[in-house]
Amino acid sequence: MAEPFRTTRLVEFHDTDMAGIMHFAAYYLYMGSAEHEFFRSLGIRLCSREPGSEGGMSLTFPRVSARCDFKSPARCEQVLDIAISVARLGNKSVTFTFEFTHDGRAVASGEMTSVCCHVHPSKPLKSVPIPADIVEKFQLFLA
Amino acid sequence: MAEPFRTTRLVEFHDTDMAGIMHFAAYYLYMGSAEHEFFRSLGIRLCSREPGSEGGMSLTFPRVSARCDFKSPARCEQVLDIAISVARLGNKSVTFTFEFTHDGRAVASGEMTSVCCHVHPSKPLKSVPIPADIVEKFQLFLA
Amino acid sequence: MAEPFRTTRLVEFHDTDMAGIMHFAAYYLYMGSAEHEFFRSLGIRLCSREPGSEGGMSLTFPRVSARCDFKSPARCEQVLDIAISVARLGNKSVTFTFEFTHDGRAVASGEMTSVCCHVHPSKPLKSVPIPADIVEKFQLFLA
Amino acid sequence: MAEPFRTTRLVEFHDTDMAGIMHFAAYYLYMGSAEHEFFRSLGIRLCSREPGSEGGMSLTFPRVSARCDFKSPARCEQVLDIAISVARLGNKSVTFTFEFTHDGRAVASGEMTSVCCHVHPSKPLKSVPIPADIVEKFQLFLA
Repeated sequence: MAEPFRTTRLVEFHDTDMAGIMHFAAYYLYMGSAEHEFFRSLGIRLCSREPGSEGGMSLTFPRVSARCDFKSPARCEQVLDIAISVARLGNKSVTFTFEFTHDGRAVASGEMTSVCCHVHPSKPLKSVPIPADIVEKFQLFLA
Repeated sequence: MAEPFRTTRLVEFHDTDMAGIMHFAAYYLYMGSAEHEFFRSLGIRLCSREPGSEGGMSLTFPRVSARCDFKSPARCEQVLDIAISVARLGNKSVTFTFEFTHDGRAVASGEMTSVCCHVHPSKPLKSVPIPADIVEKFQLFLA
Repeated sequence: MAEPFRTTRLVEFHDTDMAGIMHFAAYYLYMGSAEHEFFRSLGIRLCSREPGSEGGMSLTFPRVSARCDFKSPARCEQVLDIAISVARLGNKSVTFTFEFTHDGRAVASGEMTSVCCHVHPSKPLKSVPIPADIVEKFQLFLA
Repeated sequence: MAEPFRTTRLVEFHDTDMAGIMHFAAYYLYMGSAEHEFFRSLGIRLCSREPGSEGGMSLTFPRVSARCDFKSPARCEQVLDIAISVARLGNKSVTFTFEFTHDGRAVASGEMTSVCCHVHPSKPLKSVPIPADIVEKFQLFLA
């Protein structure tokens, strides 16, 4: 079985709430942020719309679904380990899983399904098959 | 079948991202915010930890699970209609569904499971049965 | 002296932090959100970049400066009254002040300076004089 | 002149907005996050309210004022260099400055004044003199 992509995130003070723990919605920010780090590690650039870019067309992976199970609270300044695997790989879509742990304790399990799309500022998103070179990279992390 | 609780949220500029649409993680903020409005409409106060409160003990409904399917993009300043129903009602937990629409168009479908807990600042969360008066209120929205 | 534009915001649970009060950065979100509501009340649309819009050019007021003094804590589910005035009106820029109160108690005083710009997805922002009809509207709120 | 504390932050996709640049309110999150990293580097723990902590009393530095001047846009996945200095050091308060740059280009200049306080979950915040050992540490970064 393939090894997951591993990264960490520190629980920021501003991601806690008055219950004294990390707010549940922050997990989705951490998933999105970790997913982008995973993409960068594979050489996939998602944020290429800069001044002067010809045409403004670029690749993006908008999420069609995301869920997370919260198993134990995360607290301010704890370092969360995040392990990302590819659970399913379709023609146009990919499903990632995210295991959050802290010192070996299970904190949360997330899943996110994204669809490969072309984005153009003045047109609707259009789904396209995942390019072959990206498929190859994702396959290395297929659980 | 019971009528859902209905509210609205305006898509704020700061909840959009550079793809020009509402960021996926913002849906969970809107779900949490709409859930709290639903609770207030039922007379359930979640945020009672104020200076001077005796003991500091209060009721809370931390989420153990949340998911959302994103069906079509929401854009800045669109008004989203949100319909909340009770999908499942357990002894200590409750599952809400959230239907997001804009002008009748399906935007997103969310689901959130919360567990009734006592919260005390210096102790771990402890799950407790949902009080009978709150169970009665939730049953009015059971789908 | 002109009457300010008045609106309210409820302090959301997700805007509190583990200190039990509204996080300081959330005030800037509330300022931005209230400013946009003020703009809408004047008939100024900021978020017009939608699929199919010709050229993708639209008006925006990016902030060049924002500050806030925090006078007393805001707590979960408190309703904050926000009064917006125009403190200074330049050729290309405008400075708004924001007075946050709760039940008459001073909570925070903010100030934000924005510059009128044309935005185009694939070009840098370009500052332009504030259109005359918008200048007229802002003058009604000049402190 | 003292050397500032230096750190970096990557501009996250979720901190951009539909104008294609980092949203202005995110700078305050980055300031708060960098300030906490600075505190940790000095051995100052702010987030000590955990289950079982005796009394629940801990030190905190709530902000009484924060401002930021935005000089040029920050874009998705750019790495921002952040330099923190101590601009003013009072008996109970401290003012930090934050210089944001990207590849040497000035992006933003922020300032934040915090007051040393004891926090207790069920009591109002109470300002106290900054402990001597912390004063000594801050002085090393006095501009």
